[in-house]
Amino acid sequence: MEARTIDPARMSDLEARIAALEESAPRRETEKCDSVSIVCFSGEWDRLFAVFTIANGALALGQEVHLFFTFWATAALRDEEKKSANKPLMNRLLGKFLPRGAGRAPLSKMNWGGLGKLFLGYRMRKHGIGDLDELIEKAREMGAHFHLCDTSAALLGLDCDELIGDGCIDPCGVATFLGKAMKGRMVLFI
Amino acid sequence: MEARTIDPARMSDLEARIAALEESAPRRETEKCDSVSIVCFSGEWDRLFAVFTIANGALALGQEVHLFFTFWATAALRDEEKKSANKPLMNRLLGKFLPRGAGRAPLSKMNWGGLGKLFLGYRMRKHGIGDLDELIEKAREMGAHFHLCDTSAALLGLDCDELIGDGCIDPCGVATFLGKAMKGRMVLFI
Amino acid sequence: MEARTIDPARMSDLEARIAALEESAPRRETEKCDSVSIVCFSGEWDRLFAVFTIANGALALGQEVHLFFTFWATAALRDEEKKSANKPLMNRLLGKFLPRGAGRAPLSKMNWGGLGKLFLGYRMRKHGIGDLDELIEKAREMGAHFHLCDTSAALLGLDCDELIGDGCIDPCGVATFLGKAMKGRMVLFI
Repeated sequence: MEARTIDPARMSDLEARIAALEESAPRRETEKCDSVSIVCFSGEWDRLFAVFTIANGALALGQEVHLFFTFWATAALRDEEKKSANKPLMNRLLGKFLPRGAGRAPLSKMNWGGLGKLFLGYRMRKHGIGDLDELIEKAREMGAHFHLCDTSAALLGLDCDELIGDGCIDPCGVATFLGKAMKGRMVLFI
Repeated sequence: MEARTIDPARMSDLEARIAALEESAPRRETEKCDSVSIVCFSGEWDRLFAVFTIANGALALGQEVHLFFTFWATAALRDEEKKSANKPLMNRLLGKFLPRGAGRAPLSKMNWGGLGKLFLGYRMRKHGIGDLDELIEKAREMGAHFHLCDTSAALLGLDCDELIGDGCIDPCGVATFLGKAMKGRMVLFI
Repeated sequence: MEARTIDPARMSDLEARIAALEESAPRRETEKCDSVSIVCFSGEWDRLFAVFTIANGALALGQEVHLFFTFWATAALRDEEKKSANKPLMNRLLGKFLPRGAGRAPLSKMNWGGLGKLFLGYRMRKHGIGDLDELIEKAREMGAHFHLCDTSAALLGLDCDELIGDGCIDPCGVATFLGKAMKGRMVLFI
């Protein structure tokens, strides 16, 4: 019976090698998790439309979605109705120059003082394409994570109590966001 | 002979663990396929040049390339010569405002009413750098996949019969594109 | 003793399967290396600020960082002090139109002939946010790799001896950069 000649050392070696493989396997597994992240930088209406179209597409595909609003795009999170009570004069002035909410953002091209956007709105209604506000609402309902770049908020004088979403928007630093984004399948800068 | 003491249970355990590793391996393998995807959003000449330079670089590296044309970049797919026969007046008017093909797109900066672009064209010829149209032609020859965002096409009144490439451009939704893009190695938004 | 019945063939089979797994494992390991790459295309101050904020965040997270400067962003690498000695007239003229260094780049929005940028600078000092030049310096110290797109350098008439960093900026083609970028965790186009 040749079977007797099997060396236990050979067996132990196999066991050690399998353990090594198993140990490295879960690490590989968690390396890529099912998430899509978008750095939202530009505050223009058309680019925000792209952000939320992609976000909702990814949510529909079962991805976790992280949106990091920074610089000009932070203004897209402002709530039309809400006003921050005790805001310094400078921040209040600054707020006058930034669009109050995504719906009021201008087009990046062919805006023509708002006429281009009116025309686009008309085309969208005609073709039954949902408005930007509906897309944002849908993204929130489907559980997209909204992150507000804390540096940009300070820079542009944005207070958390003037934002949409009743406190669901979490201010965070870029490293925190990057840590999440890097594990995902796809990161875009829009 | 110590070899006799090897427990078959230990052996079976090893076999099961290897099977588990093998099963998870092919899944990991297919997670990332060799593809590069670009969401082409901006219709400007310089950004389109970046799109096709990156696309051709990726094709040369043996990657499958998917280009998804949306919003302003859809105009880059228009054929200079072709005209859609029975287009509604509104779409015909809209077409007047969008560049007819990538070659006619303006620069994002220093366009100076076309002068900047003329100058850039002169520099490119001088340094033997291929024109945008050549890059597009090359990308098509090397098998890049062109996708047209169906929502954008409806919005901007684009018909398939006025596009370059004799029907090789496939209109699709964002989710279809995302499904492909997420499996790849790299996704850019340009 | 059942142990005797273990077939050496079964053992060899296991060994072969483990070897196959082990062989494929390192390949998977190297597929994704810990790097973050950014194609820097736009030369605007705010977008460059985003580039270096993300780059420094990624460096802090232990990532290798590759920055590929192309088109308008190449001007961000110009050194304010350095002048190229024997530059053709055309390149010298072209240089007049491009900002001399990242600090001199305009804002993409609300630049107001430089006033908007002055105001932003004031806000940054007030909130203790480091300036763009400091971010670039920090990125260089932490070992970010700077690549200059050779085609863009030729097109915009940039010489290596007028760049920041005393020769640490390496001119390379897009395929070389893509080869590196595709292996990483994240690629952005800014």
